[in-house]
Amino acid sequence: MAKKISRNTFIMEDPPSIHSYASVAGKMESEGPMGQYFDETEQDGYFGQKTWEKGESELIKRTLKKAIEKGGLVPGDIDYMFSGDLLNQCISSTYGLRDFEIPMFGIYGACSTMSEGLALASLMTDSGIGGKVAAVTSSHFCSAERQFRFPLSYGGVRTPTAQWTCTASGAVILSPKAAAPYVRAVTVGKIVDLGVTDANNMGAAMAPAAAYVIKTFLHDTAMEPSDFDAIITGDLGLVGSELLIDLLRTENIDISKQHKDCGLMMFDREEQDVHAGGSGCGCSASILCGYFLDKVKNGTLKNILFCATGALMSTTASQQGESIPSISHAVFISHESRFKENSN
Amino acid sequence: MAKKISRNTFIMEDPPSIHSYASVAGKMESEGPMGQYFDETEQDGYFGQKTWEKGESELIKRTLKKAIEKGGLVPGDIDYMFSGDLLNQCISSTYGLRDFEIPMFGIYGACSTMSEGLALASLMTDSGIGGKVAAVTSSHFCSAERQFRFPLSYGGVRTPTAQWTCTASGAVILSPKAAAPYVRAVTVGKIVDLGVTDANNMGAAMAPAAAYVIKTFLHDTAMEPSDFDAIITGDLGLVGSELLIDLLRTENIDISKQHKDCGLMMFDREEQDVHAGGSGCGCSASILCGYFLDKVKNGTLKNILFCATGALMSTTASQQGESIPSISHAVFISHESRFKENSN
Repeated sequence: MAKKISRNTFIMEDPPSIHSYASVAGKMESEGPMGQYFDETEQDGYFGQKTWEKGESELIKRTLKKAIEKGGLVPGDIDYMFSGDLLNQCISSTYGLRDFEIPMFGIYGACSTMSEGLALASLMTDSGIGGKVAAVTSSHFCSAERQFRFPLSYGGVRTPTAQWTCTASGAVILSPKAAAPYVRAVTVGKIVDLGVTDANNMGAAMAPAAAYVIKTFLHDTAMEPSDFDAIITGDLGLVGSELLIDLLRTENIDISKQHKDCGLMMFDREEQDVHAGGSGCGCSASILCGYFLDKVKNGTLKNILFCATGALMSTTASQQGESIPSISHAVFISHESRFKENSN
Repeated sequence: MAKKISRNTFIMEDPPSIHSYASVAGKMESEGPMGQYFDETEQDGYFGQKTWEKGESELIKRTLKKAIEKGGLVPGDIDYMFSGDLLNQCISSTYGLRDFEIPMFGIYGACSTMSEGLALASLMTDSGIGGKVAAVTSSHFCSAERQFRFPLSYGGVRTPTAQWTCTASGAVILSPKAAAPYVRAVTVGKIVDLGVTDANNMGAAMAPAAAYVIKTFLHDTAMEPSDFDAIITGDLGLVGSELLIDLLRTENIDISKQHKDCGLMMFDREEQDVHAGGSGCGCSASILCGYFLDKVKNGTLKNILFCATGALMSTTASQQGESIPSISHAVFISHESRFKENSN
């Protein structure tokens, strides 16, 4: 049973395993530095469907299917799943995953969705209320752009701080303790809102939520940044990443050596003209499942802290002058199953 | 620890208590048959705010605040909460609840949200991974109408099968076993889609999901409809309620004596011109928290099965000709803490 050591933080007493995982990404993501790591890439932005939204549903469907297959499973083996995405009413998940007939808990955490799903799946698996539990999410540049910003055919000029929503998806399937990678602890985030109102600078809005959860995790577990090979944020991009480092420095926490931001890893910013970097639920989910988990599994990386980060605004809220509340959850994933007993 | 007795169904081994609960509703709801049962009602559709969306955030904030107060608690006593709503990117929840600073899991289940939140909170509380856990949701006629249908000032004529989104909110706070009401079992639903495409007939789209979860719950627990004083659906309305009874009859299950639909309870359909009845996340949540839980607490009702029901479509999906997938989760709430050992 997961042990609650503070208001936010749970230590897994019998750390669940990430049984299998998969990632699928789009054309532009396939051409970036992460392209070689995804299980599948697709050159057609519509993924063979008639609309971008249906394409995103096809993307998330392929990703969960791949994770199930890589785990040597069939959909009937999955007890239940956590899924959500950026589209209004989470239609990528509901339409994309309905054919699996897996009991489902819909979640909404914007780009923090993979952290949230992984945290819930881990807590429940470690507490014996799940055999095989899936967490899955997606995002799509075209469906997000027309929902949140402008019609693509309008050809609007993007600001330097704008990020590029990734066309990508990631899925993990947890099981009770088996083999690496293990989930060893989670810290549940709270909504943090420092008053940023610029929807074209979401990295700045999200950095305080990431700072909060990283600081809380390190404090609660008495661990140090140096205990980790990588402290991974979802999609703060260039602006938000610098702000995160600065915010934590004011708390005497230096993660500059360990910090990796999936938004900065996804694209070659010089070559691919994505301004401040990638974003979207699928950005961190696909890089976790495509790049990081293989390395934790084979031991190249021993310990990572995965903190996908979500900006919880909507176009309606932005039009009404609201600021952008954000949230991030921290998930400690390790090659070793035993929680390191240290103190400071 | 919750005991998994089938793919979908969990029995609480040490049933968690619903420590406190609260409901707040709007003007029209205050004038209906349920009006006298809500903790608070508000005659101003804006809830003192400048927009309907900010009004809905104020509504959900007041509801959680009331549940916390009624429980003799402060926000810092709540370990974490599950919340979601109908608005794009769940902004009622994120903006309305940010000031509480409670660790948060955002969920999305459309009008099934209270069942989903209650199910997750119960599973986690019974498994020792939560002390006090809240589940909260809301809906608002005006914010929903302009997001999903037409601008209110357009004055569109509503079809006879249309339902009226309730301006209402409900919040529950669970704690480890204390006093009645107890949550004794949950059945996690799956997405059911029988191909209904009429967004003005959501009751018909949702009835199959309710039928699935009720049938599965009764089968898995070997219980009968007659074991319950009430089998409660969220907001099937007139059309969906008749369809639900018919669908279950084909499975040789007769719930006609026990069935109560919150969509039909909320308004006086003769006097209030709401066509097929009420709907919205807040409809079943406020009636559960306003009407039913008091009766289970004092023993007037011994056993109820609460099955809020959600239609998972969006306007974009409807415009693209998609059918309406639906989901419902069943939560068994009882005056007694012991699970009835029966068989059939």
